[in-house]
Amino acid sequence: MQRYDAHAVHAAMVALMRDRGLPPAHATDVADALVDASLRGIDTHGVRLLDFYLKEIEGGRAKKHPSFRITGDYPAAALFDADDALGVVAGAAAMREAIGRARKAGIAALAVSRSNHFGRADYFARMAASAGQIGLVFSNSDALVVPYGGVVPLNGTNPLAMAAPGLGEDGFHLDMATSQTAYSRVLLALRHGRQVEPGLATNQDGQDLSQGGELGALQPLGGVKGQGLGMMIQILCALLSNMPFDAELSNLYREPYDTPRQISHFMVAIEVSAFVDPVVFRTRLSELLTLFRDSRPAGDTPVRVPGDPEREVEADRRRTGIPLAEEEVAMLSGYLRADGSPVDRQGVAMI
Amino acid sequence: MQRYDAHAVHAAMVALMRDRGLPPAHATDVADALVDASLRGIDTHGVRLLDFYLKEIEGGRAKKHPSFRITGDYPAAALFDADDALGVVAGAAAMREAIGRARKAGIAALAVSRSNHFGRADYFARMAASAGQIGLVFSNSDALVVPYGGVVPLNGTNPLAMAAPGLGEDGFHLDMATSQTAYSRVLLALRHGRQVEPGLATNQDGQDLSQGGELGALQPLGGVKGQGLGMMIQILCALLSNMPFDAELSNLYREPYDTPRQISHFMVAIEVSAFVDPVVFRTRLSELLTLFRDSRPAGDTPVRVPGDPEREVEADRRRTGIPLAEEEVAMLSGYLRADGSPVDRQGVAMI
Repeated sequence: MQRYDAHAVHAAMVALMRDRGLPPAHATDVADALVDASLRGIDTHGVRLLDFYLKEIEGGRAKKHPSFRITGDYPAAALFDADDALGVVAGAAAMREAIGRARKAGIAALAVSRSNHFGRADYFARMAASAGQIGLVFSNSDALVVPYGGVVPLNGTNPLAMAAPGLGEDGFHLDMATSQTAYSRVLLALRHGRQVEPGLATNQDGQDLSQGGELGALQPLGGVKGQGLGMMIQILCALLSNMPFDAELSNLYREPYDTPRQISHFMVAIEVSAFVDPVVFRTRLSELLTLFRDSRPAGDTPVRVPGDPEREVEADRRRTGIPLAEEEVAMLSGYLRADGSPVDRQGVAMI
Repeated sequence: MQRYDAHAVHAAMVALMRDRGLPPAHATDVADALVDASLRGIDTHGVRLLDFYLKEIEGGRAKKHPSFRITGDYPAAALFDADDALGVVAGAAAMREAIGRARKAGIAALAVSRSNHFGRADYFARMAASAGQIGLVFSNSDALVVPYGGVVPLNGTNPLAMAAPGLGEDGFHLDMATSQTAYSRVLLALRHGRQVEPGLATNQDGQDLSQGGELGALQPLGGVKGQGLGMMIQILCALLSNMPFDAELSNLYREPYDTPRQISHFMVAIEVSAFVDPVVFRTRLSELLTLFRDSRPAGDTPVRVPGDPEREVEADRRRTGIPLAEEEVAMLSGYLRADGSPVDRQGVAMI
């Protein structure tokens, strides 16, 4: 795959979205988040999502011009009605609100109602970390995970993310689903005729898929505890914002595209200085990360901390560019030069 | 084991602690938490811990008369210096403070420094749920869990708990360690010569214990994600309160008993009404719990939700009493009648 300069890709995405009528600030939010994911090697949540998000807008699932409404009488907590915005736009706006409120209150939480798929959860958590705070981000999603010992999926893969700032660019950047693995990984294994390991998925009868049968759903992380975590996130997101349960949500990648999905999030920002000297916190955090990174590995692979693999890919891709698949290049046709540099919006499309 | 009325056991524990010089309010906190755990069937964290907590006091690890100090300039967040109190006393006081602050701010968080073992995390989370709020509770602990692919334990079993109120006595009551299983379960399996299942523990070289070798440490929940959760909790607890890392803590059940352990907690209370009508929240929560409970099981065991097993045991033990082991009865000697009814503090000991 050819690589394209991240700034060029970002500019091309913004220009494309502006031409489709998205407000400039929203176009920037979406490009920021997707280019960030691509830079960090999470290509499933990167540039390629733009096409899908535009489909959500065109279909009517998401609004091009949402009107956000923040309600509630409490300084550190509020409901953020996203008015069926794109999830990334809603998430970024809600986290900005949380960061601002936490600056004054010490901690703040926003429950986000009427949202959509918001991409990578850690992106929003890292917004807080960039502001010197701790960010905690949760989202519900359509049900793909069975309860422990159950047959019917009732939890989404419901991610949780936490970001905390260390020294310089260092930090703790956790982003995890509460299923044992991703649906796409199971599908990939099946497509290649590989055995699906125990504990990852169930068959149509709720038995572990490693025992045979057709793919049913995903197993919760580590068994019953993952079920609890998935429910915890469902409660914080869907119940605090009075939105549908995971099992009531439509599937992300399937029809209908004209009906809002009513995804919900829960965003928390924590002002470190409310508890401890931020310099001490950053120093101790980097010491903790170093303790893990330098600890004795069982095999040849060093011990990592959450966010390390992504940070390494990012260092490389900032230098060498983001590899784009043919469809992604086609989607940006007219906005990106073949050499990876951005074109003027009135300029000649090179691809 | 003979069963004793929960109120009698509670009264006996309070009387014993008062005779040992504990402040009446602290004695009540400890008895409340331990009897609660025993009632709910978590005997490892129940009445039997009293003897251990008194040992912590007698040795000097914990103070009989701590002076709590709450510092910080933020309405919704503060550092709670527990002054080496018993963990249960510190946890209860900090959660009360969090509940009170959340009532005004919508959410509040207390980082608790210089604490000790606080028993079951869900006890404090359920304090918030009893007040109509959501409680989130985290604690660090001495390192027993290896990082994914590591040899040296760097995370404690670091529990997280969440409680949320449903209709009536119904609710969501999660309490889980971030290891795949408990140390005591692995020891029990080894003692009985049983094979330790894959994914639970490591051997001295960091390989899975199911491959043979001597017990090394515990595996994180579900692999790398459990490592992330354990670190998340370590950061929220130890780093926000500027306390030692998990790997720097002394072992709970070992010497020295004369040195404070500097355990840390992180307590969050969320005012439901800051987001949504509390009646709607409670109703929807019970609907969600019912959805899970009534969903099709893969085998003969019904699908449960976190807290259900404990609630069932509690209903039974409130009626039939708490079964006490001989040592527990011996510990309460002079405070508890053989028939399970409490004695007057000046009365004659019946056991």
